[in-house]
Amino acid sequence: MNQPNPVLTATAPHGSDTLARCRDLVTPALRNAVDRLHPDLARLAAYTFGWADGDASPRPDGGAGGGKSIRPALALLSAEAVGGAAEAAVPGAVAVELVHAFSLVHDDIMDGDERRRHRATVWKAFGIGPALLVGDALLALATEVLTRTPDAVAPAASDLLSGMLVDLANGQAEDLAFELRPWTGPEAVTLAEYQRLALLKTGALLGCATGLGALLGGAPAEVVSAMTQFGRQLGVAFQAVDDLLGIWGDPATTGKPVFNDLRARKKTLPVVAALAGSSPAATELAALLGTPHTDERALRRAAALIDAAGGRTFATEHARRYLTGAQQSIDAAAVNLTAAAELRRTVAFIVDRAH
Amino acid sequence: MNQPNPVLTATAPHGSDTLARCRDLVTPALRNAVDRLHPDLARLAAYTFGWADGDASPRPDGGAGGGKSIRPALALLSAEAVGGAAEAAVPGAVAVELVHAFSLVHDDIMDGDERRRHRATVWKAFGIGPALLVGDALLALATEVLTRTPDAVAPAASDLLSGMLVDLANGQAEDLAFELRPWTGPEAVTLAEYQRLALLKTGALLGCATGLGALLGGAPAEVVSAMTQFGRQLGVAFQAVDDLLGIWGDPATTGKPVFNDLRARKKTLPVVAALAGSSPAATELAALLGTPHTDERALRRAAALIDAAGGRTFATEHARRYLTGAQQSIDAAAVNLTAAAELRRTVAFIVDRAH
Repeated sequence: MNQPNPVLTATAPHGSDTLARCRDLVTPALRNAVDRLHPDLARLAAYTFGWADGDASPRPDGGAGGGKSIRPALALLSAEAVGGAAEAAVPGAVAVELVHAFSLVHDDIMDGDERRRHRATVWKAFGIGPALLVGDALLALATEVLTRTPDAVAPAASDLLSGMLVDLANGQAEDLAFELRPWTGPEAVTLAEYQRLALLKTGALLGCATGLGALLGGAPAEVVSAMTQFGRQLGVAFQAVDDLLGIWGDPATTGKPVFNDLRARKKTLPVVAALAGSSPAATELAALLGTPHTDERALRRAAALIDAAGGRTFATEHARRYLTGAQQSIDAAAVNLTAAAELRRTVAFIVDRAH
Repeated sequence: MNQPNPVLTATAPHGSDTLARCRDLVTPALRNAVDRLHPDLARLAAYTFGWADGDASPRPDGGAGGGKSIRPALALLSAEAVGGAAEAAVPGAVAVELVHAFSLVHDDIMDGDERRRHRATVWKAFGIGPALLVGDALLALATEVLTRTPDAVAPAASDLLSGMLVDLANGQAEDLAFELRPWTGPEAVTLAEYQRLALLKTGALLGCATGLGALLGGAPAEVVSAMTQFGRQLGVAFQAVDDLLGIWGDPATTGKPVFNDLRARKKTLPVVAALAGSSPAATELAALLGTPHTDERALRRAAALIDAAGGRTFATEHARRYLTGAQQSIDAAAVNLTAAAELRRTVAFIVDRAH
C-alpha cells in the first residue's frame, strides 16, 4: 500500500482551497450553460445552484451555498492527475454538476423531501411541475455541454455519460424498491444488495466525473478505465458517509431534518449492517423497526441501537476502506504526482466531512 | 412546385403499411433498450409503450395500441430517402421514440392529464414519483442508444439529440407560461410566438428524427441540415393538426377528453388565430374566454365561436401550407426517388389524420 508522500502532501493545498479553485474554473461555464434555458427555467436553475433565492435575488455569497461542487472538482483534478490541463475537463465537470443537480431535484420530488441545503427544495418552493421540468432541462444541458468536447473523445465521453444516466435511474428505482422491503426476514435487504445500490446510486456519477476528467485530460483507455474505477470506489465511501450523516449528521451542517433517513425507512448501511448482527441491540432494533415510527423519541432510540449493534462502526470502517482503495487507484493511474497528491488529499477531505 | 409523381406514388405502399413496416424494424431494438432497465422501470416502460396493461399482462395486439410510431418511421424513411438503409437509422429511430415517450410521460404530469390513448396516463396509473423516474430512465436510454452509432457520425448525432432536448424543455416552459397569459390584450400570445413554440415543442423532435435518419443514412452535412429543416416544417403542420384535434377531435379516436385543450386554457393555433380577428364571433369569444370555464356547454360554445371566427380554417390551411413546404424540402434533398415518394405519402397520411 502506498502511503501519502509527506513531501508532496505538505505542499498540496488544503481540500477546501482546491474545491474553491475548481469551482472558480467551472462556475462561468455552468452559468453559460444555464443561460441557454428559457428565463423561467433559468430562474429555477439559479435557485437550484444556490445563485439566487426564491424571489430571484442574488445570494450574498454568490452561490457558495449551493454545495461544495465535489463532482466537478473530481473531473478537473482527474484530468490533472493523468497529466492533462484542468481546463480541458471543464465540459465534463459542467456535465456531471448538471446531472448531479438534475438528480437532486428529481429525487427530492420522489422522496417528498422538503429541505435541502437549509432551504426549501425546488419542488417545495416552485411546485412539482416546474421542478420536474427544470430537472429535465438540466439533464438536457448536460448532454449538450458534452458535445463541446473534441470529436476524437466525444463518443467515449457520451458513452460514459449515458451509461451513468442509466445506472442512476436504475439505482433510484432500486432505492425506492428498498423502502418497501422489510427490515428483517428473508425479504430484507442484504449487505451485497446495499453495495450494488451504492455503486449505481453514487458510484456511477463519481466514476463518470473521474472517468470524464481522465478522458478529457488525454489519458489512454486503460487509464480512463482505472480512473473511472477510482471514482466508483470513492462513491461507495462517499455513500457510506452520507448514510452516517443521514442518521447522526448535525441538521445545522447537513441542512436536512434530523433522522431523515430513518423516518423515510431508507435501508442505509449502518442499519443494514446493524441488523445483520445478532446482538441484543440488533434484536431490539429489529423489533423497534418492525412497526413504522416517525416520532423523534423512537427514531433516537433506533439510532442508539444501530450504534450499539455496531452499524455506525461498520459504516465508518467501510468508508475508510473504500477511501483507501480509491486512493490506491489514483496512485496506480496517475502520472502527475503533485496533482495526484492534491486529488488524494481532496478525496480524503471530502470523505472526512463525516467525522 | 413539385407535384407527386403518379407513377411513383402509385407503387408506394399506403401510409399505414409503411408505419407498420417501420414499427417492425424498430420495436425489437426498442425492447432491447428497455431491457436495460430495473424490472420496476421496465414494467412502467412496457405500459408506456402499450406493450402491457397496468397489471403487466401483455396486450392482445402486442403493442399496436401504443401509438403510431411516427417519429421512428420518419427517421427510417429519411435514411432511405437520402440513399441509405433503414437499418442504419434504427438507433436514431429508437432514440427519438424514447424521447417522445419521455416527454409524454413528463408532460402528462405537468399538465395533470389523466387520460392518453384510451388508458390512464402513467402518473395516474402508477403515481407521480414512478412516472417521473421512468421518464428519466427513457431519456437516459435515448442517450445510450445513440452511442451505438458509428464513431464517424456519433458527435453529430449527439449534437442533434442534445440540441433537441434543450429545445423541448424550453418549449415546454413556454407552453406552461402561455397558460398563465391572458387571451386578449397586450399580454396575449401572438401568432409569431405561437409559431416559435410549435417549432420548439414539436418541430424540434420531428426535425431530430428526420435529421438523425439522414445522418445515419450517410448523407453529407448540408443534406442532413435540409432534412432536419423538413422535419421542423412537418412538426409545425403536425402541431396545427394536433391543435385541431385538441378541440374538435373525436375522443373515441384521440383517447383524450373532449375540449381538453380549451379546458386547460392552452393557447393553440385555432384560438390564437380566431382571437387575432375582429369579427363578432372573435369579440364574443374573447368575452367568453375572459372568465375560466370548465363546463362542457361553455366549452362547446367557445369551440363554435373559434370556428365561426375563422380559427379552424386558419389552422387547417396552416397545416396544409407547412405540409406542402415539408414535402418540397424532401424533393430538394432526396436522392432515392422511390423512397422519397413513400416518405412524402407517409407525411401526408400523418398530417391528414385530422380530416
